[in-house]
Formats: sequence, structure tokens, C-alpha cells
Amino acid sequence: MTNSPDNTDLPEKSGPATPGAMKHREPGSERELMFRNRVPTGDSLARDICDHCGFIHYDNPKIVVGSVVTHGGRFLMCRRAIEPRRNFWTLPAGFMEHGETTAEGAVREAREEANADIRIHDLLAIYNIPRIGQVQIMYRAELASPEFSAGPESLEVRLFAWEEIPWDELAFPSVHWALTQFRSVAGEGAIAPFSNPEGETGNAFPKTAR
Amino acid sequence: MTNSPDNTDLPEKSGPATPGAMKHREPGSERELMFRNRVPTGDSLARDICDHCGFIHYDNPKIVVGSVVTHGGRFLMCRRAIEPRRNFWTLPAGFMEHGETTAEGAVREAREEANADIRIHDLLAIYNIPRIGQVQIMYRAELASPEFSAGPESLEVRLFAWEEIPWDELAFPSVHWALTQFRSVAGEGAIAPFSNPEGETGNAFPKTAR
Repeated sequence: MTNSPDNTDLPEKSGPATPGAMKHREPGSERELMFRNRVPTGDSLARDICDHCGFIHYDNPKIVVGSVVTHGGRFLMCRRAIEPRRNFWTLPAGFMEHGETTAEGAVREAREEANADIRIHDLLAIYNIPRIGQVQIMYRAELASPEFSAGPESLEVRLFAWEEIPWDELAFPSVHWALTQFRSVAGEGAIAPFSNPEGETGNAFPKTAR
Repeated sequence: MTNSPDNTDLPEKSGPATPGAMKHREPGSERELMFRNRVPTGDSLARDICDHCGFIHYDNPKIVVGSVVTHGGRFLMCRRAIEPRRNFWTLPAGFMEHGETTAEGAVREAREEANADIRIHDLLAIYNIPRIGQVQIMYRAELASPEFSAGPESLEVRLFAWEEIPWDELAFPSVHWALTQFRSVAGEGAIAPFSNPEGETGNAFPKTAR
């Protein structure tokens, strides 16, 4: 996953901005244009607003789209080439962009991170990680063709049998959730999607069995 | 729904910003600080970047959270007090905020728009409306207590029997989708969630039967 540090050890690069901390500076000037955190007229929550020009910076949770991709019963995983969690294993996933649907975004991420052409089946889970302002939408998918290789954000891409998955080297708790929940409904056609495992907020890896 | 104009007749108030069009001005100055649309180092897509201070404005799709709320087989709906689509009927829904989960956001919106206390059951649908940069996450829910009334963004809140729903006065196509899809699985316990009806992008109301 791209920049999705749902682990407390990591800097919150993608987390919500600190209210009122956003700055924008005139070139050559020492004066910084401050955004103040106050409630706009007609709104109910405080937003960062430029007191001079009135620009309102609406900062909302971001969507991560990704998938559990299988091929012949094995799982496609990427070893991250970038921080956070460089060298750790993840599923193809990343921030959704404008102009695409959630499923199209998951397909694009698999192409970018694993040079893989995937076929989306259905929704596996929606995970909420409010601490870093993320909603992760994860699909069940399969490789449309058996070719894949490391994209620029991956050091290595591999297919793992279930017993081979590097559980102690997973990048994020939600990678663990997605793999184990996928496994629990393997073979079932239509499923009710999962959310965070009971009591899990993404701050740590689950202690539950795999 | 708050500011969710998924109808072509409406201004795209909540849609993606036009690349490079964002401005921010020094007080008392005629000079505008322009954001230029270019690809940041290590990124793959163009972003709005201030050429002077390097501030990168990441603009991503926003999440709308809401619910189809029933009570005794009737449907809770709100007549909008605000633009877009003032006077038209909608479901309690709005933009997700930081610090909450998607389900918590849906509960909050029902409280704000209908002074209603609701109990979330399960996920009904995820709708993609790329034209306005929205992903709508809709739940099945019921009233936890029979009291409700119009919040500040509603002119009127009512429970409608299915036959009474004001189909010609719905605020957005996705209200139509959510109601008809809800109806199609009424009574079913665990469901696979829906997405956009086949071929529907949110640009117009569906021609399909109710």
C-alpha cells in the first residue's frame, strides 16, 4: 500500500493535518499566511480558513483501494521499496485518485505496484483507521494473466502459498486482517463484507490466530 | 445528503478542483500565489503545487456516509433546506469527517439532519460517482427510538411507506438506487453489498422500475 502507515511505530505522513498549522508563504516575504481553525458560516465543524482570502481547506478522510489477489490458491504480495515500512510485505493498494471508481483504483494499484493485470470479483472489506484518516476498501481479485514483476514502489513481488506468507514481516495490520478474512470465506460466492476485526483499530498487529 | 450533487443539472460544488486553478492571495497584494499542476518528485500523477513554497495540495475523492433508515417498514427521509436540490427529498447522509468511522459518520448525519437516533445494521452499498469525486458508503439502519425532527439542514423529516415515497422529488439518483436496492433485499440477513446499478454513473435518475 502506498503511504498507508496504520502502525503506531510510523510517522503519520498521511494523517489528518494539525488544525490551524497549514502555512502558505508569499515569495520573498517573511510573512506567512496563516489558516485559522474556525467554524465557517453555516457549517457545524471547525475548518482551516485563510482569514485574508477566505479560502476554506476541507480536510476529509482519504480512501485507500486495494485487493487480495490470488492465482492458483497463492497470494500476490509486494515487498515495499518506499517508506513507511520499506522492506515489509503488503498487498497491492494505495490512495484512490479522481476520475476512477474504487474498483478501477484497485486495478490501477496492482498494475503500478506489481505490473499485474487483475480481475476484481467482489468487495472483501471496508476498514476504518480514524487515527490516520483512512478508509480502506479491499476487494477479492485474481490475476488475469500469470505475469507480474516489481513496479517502482516494490522491491520484489511474489506469490505465496498460505503457509509461506511472511506473517512477521507484514507492512500493516490491515494486511493481516485482509488475508485472514479472505481465507475465512474462501470458496464462498457472495459474501457480506468485513470491517475491522472486533476491537482492532489498526494501532497494532492482531494477536489472533491466522 | 450534504452537498452531494450527483445530478448534471447542479453546480459541482463538491467536485474535484480544476487543476492549477487554486489561488491564495497575500493580504493587500494584487499578486496571486498560483498553484501549478505538475508531478511531484517520486509521484506518478500531477498535483497542484505552489512553485514558491512547495506546498502540495493532494486532492482526493471524498467519502459520503449515510443510511437507509426504516421504522415499522417505513423509510426515514429528509426534505433539504439547503442547496443543491433544496426542497427535494434525500436520505440522511453527508461528508465523512476525521476522527470517526464510516458507520459513526452515518449515525452522526442522521442525528444532524433528522434529530434521529439510529442503529446501524450492515453495509447496503458503495456508490462511485467519479464526476464529482465522491464515494458514497450507505448502510442499512433502523430508528433506535421513534422520535425525529428536522435538523438545520432539513425543512421536514418524514417516515414514508414504500408507496408514499416522493419518487419525482428525490434529490439525487443515488437516493433512488439506495431505496430500490434496499427493497430488493428486505428481510435478508447477510447481504453482498451493491454498487452503482448497471450502466448508471449518477448523471441522471434511472429509468428502471422502482
